[in-house]
Amino acid sequence: MNNTIKTHPLTATEFAPYGDVLEMSGNPTVTINQGMCDRYNDLANVDFANGRAGISIFKSKIRNLPYQLDMVERHPYGSQTFIPMSQHPFMVVVADDQNGTPINPRAFIAAIGQAINFHRGTWHGVLTPLHEPGLFAVVDRVGAGANLQEYYFKLPYLIEAI
Amino acid sequence: MNNTIKTHPLTATEFAPYGDVLEMSGNPTVTINQGMCDRYNDLANVDFANGRAGISIFKSKIRNLPYQLDMVERHPYGSQTFIPMSQHPFMVVVADDQNGTPINPRAFIAAIGQAINFHRGTWHGVLTPLHEPGLFAVVDRVGAGANLQEYYFKLPYLIEAI
Repeated sequence: MNNTIKTHPLTATEFAPYGDVLEMSGNPTVTINQGMCDRYNDLANVDFANGRAGISIFKSKIRNLPYQLDMVERHPYGSQTFIPMSQHPFMVVVADDQNGTPINPRAFIAAIGQAINFHRGTWHGVLTPLHEPGLFAVVDRVGAGANLQEYYFKLPYLIEAI
Repeated sequence: MNNTIKTHPLTATEFAPYGDVLEMSGNPTVTINQGMCDRYNDLANVDFANGRAGISIFKSKIRNLPYQLDMVERHPYGSQTFIPMSQHPFMVVVADDQNGTPINPRAFIAAIGQAINFHRGTWHGVLTPLHEPGLFAVVDRVGAGANLQEYYFKLPYLIEAI
């Protein structure tokens, strides 16, 4: 089937065209609190137009693989950071843009300890946790205006574990 | 011992003078993603002076009770949100301000699924996870200026489990 996508492990390099991976990578930026805490500083390209940062809690139903990808969405006015509040992998779906149409969807599996930030305007799938509790903190834009664009694929994709 | 503090469960009401509790409380603000995800919207009073929001990862050593509280700190230019990236309780210490001196420290134990936001300028203890991995996402101010004030108590406090 041509519309089958295999998942890949999430890495900062592969995810760079779409956003940021927030994780402990390399040496900490600074160690604080008298040596008790490592800080990896300022890991997300937080980018809000005509609005401000807000922090929300998302509680999502879990999904299973194989997963049928019917649609993607994007937010023209702001980046969106998803921080898992549990130690579980979750799936992250993104797509390239071609003149306003999402193409070439890709599926990543975030490892335990990774959070992600979608750059402003990046096509992405809805939140797809793979394990309970499906609880995330989300940093995104609060403000007026139509900040949600959805695109339904004519032919759904099927996402399978690698 | 006069300087002994008992921990209390973290509740939004008791924490209100110091900051916000980010949690699933009551009905969701909105249900999104075709009914698959509950959104509890905009739960933190994000407040940055002369700077912007940044998102960092903190990896802290864990602490045990009883815990000796030597000092507290505050950030005059920005609020600070701590989001646990695991399902474990953590300790949150705050204090009132009296003409620039922290008084009346209090200790709360955040339950699984709770994150917290210290309001700008609130005296608080350093990050004190009680369980591995001690991994948090932190939303705070990125910008120039002296944004850290520390205060060492003449007589340390001892924080004990209730």
